[in-house]
Amino acid sequence: MLKGRHLIDIMDFSIEELDEIFKLSNQIISKEEQFSHLCEGKLLATLFYEPSTRTRLSFESAMMRLGGKVIGFSDAGSSSVSKGESIADTIRVIGCYADIAAMRHPKEGAPKIASMYSNIPVINAGDGGHQHPTQTLADLLTIKSIKGTMSNLRIGCCGDLKFGRTVHSLIKAMSRYENNSFTLISPKELKIPDYVKKELDNKKIEYSETSNLESTIGSLDILYMTRVQKERFFNEEDYIRLKDSYILDKEKISRAKDDMIVLHPLPRVNEISYEIDSDPRACYFKQAKYGMYVRMALIVKLLGIQ
Amino acid sequence: MLKGRHLIDIMDFSIEELDEIFKLSNQIISKEEQFSHLCEGKLLATLFYEPSTRTRLSFESAMMRLGGKVIGFSDAGSSSVSKGESIADTIRVIGCYADIAAMRHPKEGAPKIASMYSNIPVINAGDGGHQHPTQTLADLLTIKSIKGTMSNLRIGCCGDLKFGRTVHSLIKAMSRYENNSFTLISPKELKIPDYVKKELDNKKIEYSETSNLESTIGSLDILYMTRVQKERFFNEEDYIRLKDSYILDKEKISRAKDDMIVLHPLPRVNEISYEIDSDPRACYFKQAKYGMYVRMALIVKLLGIQ
Amino acid sequence: MLKGRHLIDIMDFSIEELDEIFKLSNQIISKEEQFSHLCEGKLLATLFYEPSTRTRLSFESAMMRLGGKVIGFSDAGSSSVSKGESIADTIRVIGCYADIAAMRHPKEGAPKIASMYSNIPVINAGDGGHQHPTQTLADLLTIKSIKGTMSNLRIGCCGDLKFGRTVHSLIKAMSRYENNSFTLISPKELKIPDYVKKELDNKKIEYSETSNLESTIGSLDILYMTRVQKERFFNEEDYIRLKDSYILDKEKISRAKDDMIVLHPLPRVNEISYEIDSDPRACYFKQAKYGMYVRMALIVKLLGIQ
Repeated sequence: MLKGRHLIDIMDFSIEELDEIFKLSNQIISKEEQFSHLCEGKLLATLFYEPSTRTRLSFESAMMRLGGKVIGFSDAGSSSVSKGESIADTIRVIGCYADIAAMRHPKEGAPKIASMYSNIPVINAGDGGHQHPTQTLADLLTIKSIKGTMSNLRIGCCGDLKFGRTVHSLIKAMSRYENNSFTLISPKELKIPDYVKKELDNKKIEYSETSNLESTIGSLDILYMTRVQKERFFNEEDYIRLKDSYILDKEKISRAKDDMIVLHPLPRVNEISYEIDSDPRACYFKQAKYGMYVRMALIVKLLGIQ
Repeated sequence: MLKGRHLIDIMDFSIEELDEIFKLSNQIISKEEQFSHLCEGKLLATLFYEPSTRTRLSFESAMMRLGGKVIGFSDAGSSSVSKGESIADTIRVIGCYADIAAMRHPKEGAPKIASMYSNIPVINAGDGGHQHPTQTLADLLTIKSIKGTMSNLRIGCCGDLKFGRTVHSLIKAMSRYENNSFTLISPKELKIPDYVKKELDNKKIEYSETSNLESTIGSLDILYMTRVQKERFFNEEDYIRLKDSYILDKEKISRAKDDMIVLHPLPRVNEISYEIDSDPRACYFKQAKYGMYVRMALIVKLLGIQ
Repeated sequence: MLKGRHLIDIMDFSIEELDEIFKLSNQIISKEEQFSHLCEGKLLATLFYEPSTRTRLSFESAMMRLGGKVIGFSDAGSSSVSKGESIADTIRVIGCYADIAAMRHPKEGAPKIASMYSNIPVINAGDGGHQHPTQTLADLLTIKSIKGTMSNLRIGCCGDLKFGRTVHSLIKAMSRYENNSFTLISPKELKIPDYVKKELDNKKIEYSETSNLESTIGSLDILYMTRVQKERFFNEEDYIRLKDSYILDKEKISRAKDDMIVLHPLPRVNEISYEIDSDPRACYFKQAKYGMYVRMALIVKLLGIQ
């Protein structure tokens, strides 16, 4: 039963609860018009203490496509909400106006605190480098929909595995399903943190680490690309030397399986070459669409309407 | 008849007109679903030349809960409206798009000027340190709803009585009802302006001034708290010495009547201790909710829909 | 057939297609309530990479008055969309969320690029000093509605004819209709660019250039005023000497025909004296209203709903 619940961390929901959300997502995808009045009279508050246009617009279009409406702010700078007022007070006032809230905050834990004082469901729309559970929902729904399964997959994660929170959450989430394995592809400067590997070890989940995309791409069912940011490197030489190895282009994808899918949380900069966009394996724009649908399902479930 | 009228100053409306608004507010509160399509096809413009997220979201949720929609801007900085264009021209263009407007402006008198050129109702959503009549409407509806009367009340106003425009408006408004009296509680640096006292004298309304919350709280029916801002003091020593006297905590509220209510326009910083929130006398979050409902009623009345 | 098309340049549409839009605009004007549910369930994305409140609110009210909803951003500064992401990627993501997009961008050509990658109709809402086709649509609909014809008109363009893109587009658009002629009124520093005159020559369209509004106003059917910006002059003396000649006041308008109409894209600063506002020939606020109606018709046509 998801009615009235919060979503702060993807692990807040059981596999069964996630399945409930994915099932509803698929119903919405196949018969969207049947859901277009479901949230009439309901209000979503988008409380974005830092700008994240893509995520905000995904939430807002999700609510609007359900017939609901949206209030909110897109930047604490042009907002007075943050001026000295506690998150606890803000969410209690917002709870007077709206039926559900999505909160983005630069500080880790802020949405969690909000949820503790809130009388309406709070969705974490990203808190610092910490959690971004609706991105993970989007990733999972995309995998389930296109691959037809969440199990028995070899998942390659490529790029910045050190700071990329979406990758950490994806690994955590996919580890809950049967017989998945991971190939962790990154420069040594941006390797996955030890605590993630320890979790995999504890659960006896197979994984390997490599710095070579080209030689491993052939074994993957899923390739999850992330951005390698220049700022992460100590010196520019290393960056220049390394960055090309983590750019997905025609040459590299030619070694991949025909049914491998390429995912990316977007925005991309140059880590996926534009020539890949027309490859049937490129699924990152579909992923954005699935992200909207899964947010629709999530809103419906937390409001307890279905 | 409120159809087509503007609300710039709370004194623009007679007691009878205020009663009309409060009556409709209560109807909305008791049967909100009957009002959820009333403003369908209507547009509210929120013209916020300075950010005030709480007030803006209150207006926007009010309109949306009536089935209406909202256009606007939340900050003149990210708006081009203000660039050299007169308020008179702006409101005439907005009048082409929307059916009613709520204007927040850092300059005193700006909403008044807008109303003079406007062919749609203009609501003052706060102009500098001047007026904020919908906050006063919220205060009055809260008092009427919880105390059951607007008369025969002893109203304590505590904190910064010098600059606090909400207090000035509240005193003016409550002075119109029978047999109310005021206890004005502030440090001597932040005493109520003389002109307010002169008005009370002229109307032969009883009031007293004190710097001591603790010794007077026991006589109050209503305690209206406001923030004591550090910037108002000439030196930090005075501020530190004084501020604690104006913080409402468990100890101080233990001396109050059981049916006293605590109000606050929000946001609070630390002038009401968090431990008070669970006290049944704490009504400041209810007040935010009443603020939304009274704005719903106001919009309906000015549009002349009911 | 306009369904699924983009509007980047006013010349993208044939005269017949423009007529289709104007015809629908007039139907909306005469029976607006019949159109108030037409876009229910549809989403407009307003992608404003630079603020332009008037244009944005015109689009948003247009969509809302059709029963549709709006997502978007009003300023790239408070948006993360622009951070390193290409226009091509942004519009493909937006195409997952919305049904149609209006884009304002400081860079010339940006909306064109967006349209090349977009699976939803893209409307250019202004790109740098380049194009602003919906302003021209507003101008044309105003002329057609008030003058009753698009032909046989003498059109005076007054003010900054060098940088004023709305004037260039208006001349281009009105040149397509029969037997119009132009009087180009500006200080010599701000004369119309040669390429515009060459186009008029090629089409054998009559025009004259003058620096004197007073002596030519009597011959005009339409006077299109634009702002003379101080920044355009090399020295302040020239500006001060010249600016008054291009201010429309009672004295100057007394020489005009009774059925001449005064247009202005707004915002005005001081180039039209306030005393003119009550003159029946002043049509610039009506023009703002027509601008909203023509955007309603445009949205309906590009969505292919009617």
